[in-house]
Amino acid sequence: MAGTDKERIMIAEGPAIVLVEPQMGENIGMVARAMANFGLSELRLVNPRDGWPSTKARATASGAAHVIDCARVFATLEEAIGDLKLVLATTAREREMFKPVYGPREAAGKLREAFAAGISCGVLFGRERWGLKNEEVALAQAIITFPVNPGFASLNLAQAALLLSYEWMSAEAGDRPTFSAPMPEPASNRDLVGLMEHLESALDATNYFHPPEKREKMVLNLRNILAKANLGEPEVRTLRGVIASLERRWLRESKA
Amino acid sequence: MAGTDKERIMIAEGPAIVLVEPQMGENIGMVARAMANFGLSELRLVNPRDGWPSTKARATASGAAHVIDCARVFATLEEAIGDLKLVLATTAREREMFKPVYGPREAAGKLREAFAAGISCGVLFGRERWGLKNEEVALAQAIITFPVNPGFASLNLAQAALLLSYEWMSAEAGDRPTFSAPMPEPASNRDLVGLMEHLESALDATNYFHPPEKREKMVLNLRNILAKANLGEPEVRTLRGVIASLERRWLRESKA
Repeated sequence: MAGTDKERIMIAEGPAIVLVEPQMGENIGMVARAMANFGLSELRLVNPRDGWPSTKARATASGAAHVIDCARVFATLEEAIGDLKLVLATTAREREMFKPVYGPREAAGKLREAFAAGISCGVLFGRERWGLKNEEVALAQAIITFPVNPGFASLNLAQAALLLSYEWMSAEAGDRPTFSAPMPEPASNRDLVGLMEHLESALDATNYFHPPEKREKMVLNLRNILAKANLGEPEVRTLRGVIASLERRWLRESKA
Repeated sequence: MAGTDKERIMIAEGPAIVLVEPQMGENIGMVARAMANFGLSELRLVNPRDGWPSTKARATASGAAHVIDCARVFATLEEAIGDLKLVLATTAREREMFKPVYGPREAAGKLREAFAAGISCGVLFGRERWGLKNEEVALAQAIITFPVNPGFASLNLAQAALLLSYEWMSAEAGDRPTFSAPMPEPASNRDLVGLMEHLESALDATNYFHPPEKREKMVLNLRNILAKANLGEPEVRTLRGVIASLERRWLRESKA
């Protein structure tokens, strides 16, 4: 489902998100939305409590219809992940299993690496109330857990899926914003000095530099303020207009 | 509000989250919850549409009462951020302003740096429907935008606050999981070779290595499988028990 222009391309790839016995349709929908936000599309449901399809899921998916429409339902976890070659299990609790534990960023890196190598992969999320069973975690190659406030660790299903999906996209795109600052053409040093001198001459005319022996230091201060402001060429023009306008007022008033 | 033990310490510090004219109490509550999950606590509300306090906000905050209770309400944005020295504005749209644009990770780094230096800081989030006005963004030192799927960019208020809060915590803690894998005491090479030899002698007894000229290569294969499995000392013991058990069955059957 590609958009109408290059910048609106719909990204829909990556690891399967596997929800094990999700309880509320609303949460399934919010997971689908989070997945779509960050370019994931393959949703697998193991034995959803309230059945499937779900109108509540569709409502909270908020337009991520491509994820909801393609979601597949399985009777058991074993069937749901039968074709996957790298399976990571999310859990908030320590499991006393001799198995690697990744944060979401490291996990996303592992998933990107596998995905790039053509290795089918997936991430397991457990029931809203009590997560994954130990025998479900035992089927995974590694564990993902989220760094949360130890005193308030109530991350819900949709939030956990959002963070994993976000890290999946960040692992590819980095922290690059979707748009960059429209930075102005930087001012040349000649432009900058022109501004400084314009300001100084205007201030000379109003006797700003008083007493005269302080002029040198005051000029340095002003020049430092202007130099460190990283002014663009149009911004220098704007400021020269400002000074000229103030000068005109002063000239008008001095004529009156 | 520290917990009962060291591991449950409640983290509650960091930049203020400033919601400008939030419309739904539910969303304010979900923002409070996301903040608490990642150690933020100072919530400021500019002119919330449905008034304050809000029972809906308290319900969706899901236990983040310390954030809701301490939230402060302001009539204008200028009052809400009057004391702040570094203000970042979140926006999904390009604004044609000559101002730095950060992704959430870079923004979190800037906020951590300022916070560590004792500089009061805050992050602005706009209305659910249409975000911040240009004149509101103009009060901020820089812009934060989130890297999303260009074809599906419907990040909501609570999701955006969650990602920013998550990056705030990650900027301090890194990607370190809240618990680490309980890795077993690694097996010594002597233990490993003991396992290999035990397996090989058991297989010799069952004529597994057939034909004999292939024995050397088959042994190498098995030894590589065991060597790369990173076995721990207790795992080696487990596997030796497995082999011994299989041997006993064979011995029993060969006696019968």
